[in-house]
Amino acid sequence: MIRKIDHIGIAVHSLQPIRTLFRTIFNLEPEYEEEVPDQKVRVLGYRIGESHFEFLEPLDATSPISSFLEKRGEGLHHVAISVDDISALLAKMKANNVRLIDDTPRKGAGGKQIAFVHPRSLHGVLLELSQEE
Amino acid sequence: MIRKIDHIGIAVHSLQPIRTLFRTIFNLEPEYEEEVPDQKVRVLGYRIGESHFEFLEPLDATSPISSFLEKRGEGLHHVAISVDDISALLAKMKANNVRLIDDTPRKGAGGKQIAFVHPRSLHGVLLELSQEE
Repeated sequence: MIRKIDHIGIAVHSLQPIRTLFRTIFNLEPEYEEEVPDQKVRVLGYRIGESHFEFLEPLDATSPISSFLEKRGEGLHHVAISVDDISALLAKMKANNVRLIDDTPRKGAGGKQIAFVHPRSLHGVLLELSQEE
Repeated sequence: MIRKIDHIGIAVHSLQPIRTLFRTIFNLEPEYEEEVPDQKVRVLGYRIGESHFEFLEPLDATSPISSFLEKRGEGLHHVAISVDDISALLAKMKANNVRLIDDTPRKGAGGKQIAFVHPRSLHGVLLELSQEE
């Protein structure tokens, strides 16, 4: 049912020092970079095995990442897992009183179907479910 | 140089509700469970693709996980990446003024060589380097 970790989301103030860090220390260039207006973030993704590190820079002060940075500072923000059947998993979670942020899947970056699960139901972990179409 | 995400470490008060959650929601049983006296934690690991979710319960109040739970509550604690040559990577980091928690590799769970990098040098992310022998 779970295929893999799709990415780890990391909140940062600015993407620029990340580029320098990854080039210098890991000899790595980003695999993708895009704006996700829906979440008011600019993301920078590095392939790590079958997964990615995804750095998130807020586009403005109303971005959820801005509030996160204010409260907790830079660091690990969420984990996204790739699943076979996002609708079935959401239904199962609902039936087990897991608190959902998105009741139904919505379009995420790269045309994937995504949904967020509330950290209060998952021991403080903000989990993103993601299904490739 | 980086092979994959080895695991994501998640700090929790108790491992018991995690077992129930993973069985009920994801139909998953743990792949390993062990005490790591060095870190004063009991760990519970679930395979997710080529990687793992690793839940960390403190063994006592002097565990680093106890202080983390007190300060930040349950949630994402660290990320471990699997690398080819941990000593070369540590040397490169040192040469670039990256602050290390472990200057030289030490023995971790499963006979791996591990070393932690300080979150202050990595935008708030506590990074574990891990090399299989």
